[in-house]
Amino acid sequence: MAERPILGISMGDPFGNGPEITVRALADKTLYDRCRPLVVGDRSSMAYALRTAKKVLDIDLTLNVVAGPEEGRYEYGTIDLMDLSLVPADRIPDTADEAEPKPFGVGACALGGEAAFRYVTTVIEMAMAGAVDATVTNALSKEAINMAGHRYSGHTEIYAHYTGTDKYTMMLAHENLRVVHVSTHVSLREACDRVKKDRVLDCIRIADAGCRALGIERPRVGVAGLNPHCGENGMFGTEETAEIQPAIDAAMAEGICIPEGKPTPPDTVFSKALGGWYDIVVVMYHDQGHIPLKVKGFVYNREEKRWEAVAGVNVTLGLPIIRASVDHGTGFGHAGSGRANALSLVNAMDCAIALANHRAR
Amino acid sequence: MAERPILGISMGDPFGNGPEITVRALADKTLYDRCRPLVVGDRSSMAYALRTAKKVLDIDLTLNVVAGPEEGRYEYGTIDLMDLSLVPADRIPDTADEAEPKPFGVGACALGGEAAFRYVTTVIEMAMAGAVDATVTNALSKEAINMAGHRYSGHTEIYAHYTGTDKYTMMLAHENLRVVHVSTHVSLREACDRVKKDRVLDCIRIADAGCRALGIERPRVGVAGLNPHCGENGMFGTEETAEIQPAIDAAMAEGICIPEGKPTPPDTVFSKALGGWYDIVVVMYHDQGHIPLKVKGFVYNREEKRWEAVAGVNVTLGLPIIRASVDHGTGFGHAGSGRANALSLVNAMDCAIALANHRAR
Repeated sequence: MAERPILGISMGDPFGNGPEITVRALADKTLYDRCRPLVVGDRSSMAYALRTAKKVLDIDLTLNVVAGPEEGRYEYGTIDLMDLSLVPADRIPDTADEAEPKPFGVGACALGGEAAFRYVTTVIEMAMAGAVDATVTNALSKEAINMAGHRYSGHTEIYAHYTGTDKYTMMLAHENLRVVHVSTHVSLREACDRVKKDRVLDCIRIADAGCRALGIERPRVGVAGLNPHCGENGMFGTEETAEIQPAIDAAMAEGICIPEGKPTPPDTVFSKALGGWYDIVVVMYHDQGHIPLKVKGFVYNREEKRWEAVAGVNVTLGLPIIRASVDHGTGFGHAGSGRANALSLVNAMDCAIALANHRAR
Repeated sequence: MAERPILGISMGDPFGNGPEITVRALADKTLYDRCRPLVVGDRSSMAYALRTAKKVLDIDLTLNVVAGPEEGRYEYGTIDLMDLSLVPADRIPDTADEAEPKPFGVGACALGGEAAFRYVTTVIEMAMAGAVDATVTNALSKEAINMAGHRYSGHTEIYAHYTGTDKYTMMLAHENLRVVHVSTHVSLREACDRVKKDRVLDCIRIADAGCRALGIERPRVGVAGLNPHCGENGMFGTEETAEIQPAIDAAMAEGICIPEGKPTPPDTVFSKALGGWYDIVVVMYHDQGHIPLKVKGFVYNREEKRWEAVAGVNVTLGLPIIRASVDHGTGFGHAGSGRANALSLVNAMDCAIALANHRAR
């Protein structure tokens, strides 16, 4: 890959915010200096998003429908699109109407789920075939893909299946704050049960490898404790001494850099990471990682009752291909208005670019 | 209280950062427009902190030793001090030495613990007697007070004992982010067990009352869930439906405003609070509240390996007197250098002022 990497970008649920976010992201001219973006989606939805962007934001771009990556122009001003023609034009309104804040008014449906699913499997296939250098995904609805008969709990599981991967982990990032989770979508009680030496050690290794894949030469890994104050010497909780410390010792014996050599109190580890002390933090449960990321990346505008900034990137580590994703949902409630924030998609594209460039070295 | 409220400020552990932080805070002239600050501590320590502040920061203030609040001048330029004479002058160095970054070199000791304990009980007694309008505490060391034979786990328990209070709660705040905890210093497993309807309801009431005490007329209370995504309809965890929702229903029946009427996902509730959606958030465990507060209030400087900003206020609700506190420890490692950050103490003083002014209305 001597050139800018080609990113295969799945459009996401056609009735969600993916089309408009994709248009807004690709209105950033500088992106074309860093990559060759190829959208995989539907002409009907992208054309709607372009008309809306013109009307609402005065963004003036056109579509270039292509049969495959080799036909892309990859020039600012036209969006290269592989049109899978899954969404009939009559299912998409002509343009956003100021008087109608919810132009689609659909939410999760089988048509949207089927389309979103196919965009994703297409970008995966292209990446597996080496036709694109990395994949970037817009939001899909778990409910919608299940309505369409695809029994996956989300993107990550689709990627695992279609790439034949059984050991993978999600890394979430916002600017210099990166986290890898020991567990995610389980109850907090179950999350406590999952804090086991082997599992924690696996996550430390993945965190280290993930940073190296991003081009960080000697990653410094922070490991959060589970209990407040790391259990304060066993006074409230023993997972730190019984499970986390042995995992840290084993990881350090493998040469992984864990600056403090012990678990860090969960309420200070993120401030330290933000201050540059760690390149990545291994967190013990979903909200331990999600709270600091969203506190930094999400900004809520109370007067307008909407999220002003929704920044954050979700990277799946352990796959044979590169995948970075937006870190938010389909936003069905407001989708189609043309005003959804594209920061997370731009961040995801930049993360995919970094991973692709590093892999190509 | 027609005048500016009198704040009784305990100096904290004499071998900790309390003296220097107090001097730095009282170098802010505007504070004297808002309150009448009275320090309860030791002349030897405060004189050291003043000499150091002159040398290190070019802050030029003098001491005015008084027998009680009625003798205070309360004018910028002199620090009014009730000198309890507990720390012999020969235990305190003459001045900070640039070559010696740890001038005290003591850490937790019985002398410091005894002194810190007595400063606190003195400000409590003065507040109970109505001689001061509010109390503000610098950091003490749990270890040091126990070495001195006082079996308390911290300030809050001392306050509870000396004011005869058995139902009290800590509210932590940083700017417009305020939290009340359902549990704090227990293991995460134990914290899950403590999420019970009655306990959550108590905390919602305390959160509401705490905001009213700060002068917020109709507080909007956010209630975080325990599990990721609030358990996603029972898929991972049932505390939201079994315990938290009934508490919310009961609180709303009492007229407390909970905008959404249900628990909010733990990873978005703080972004919403920061965006102005809630005045306070009831959190289910220690780190759920501490992580967002410290991510916002703590800034770590990697190059200098120190905390640049340590902002945040700790208010004890439910006491017959007002108490606000710094939200950090004694910083024994660096104490005496004169460079500790005073933001948290200034915030605590402003919080105490707001509470005192509201109570006086």
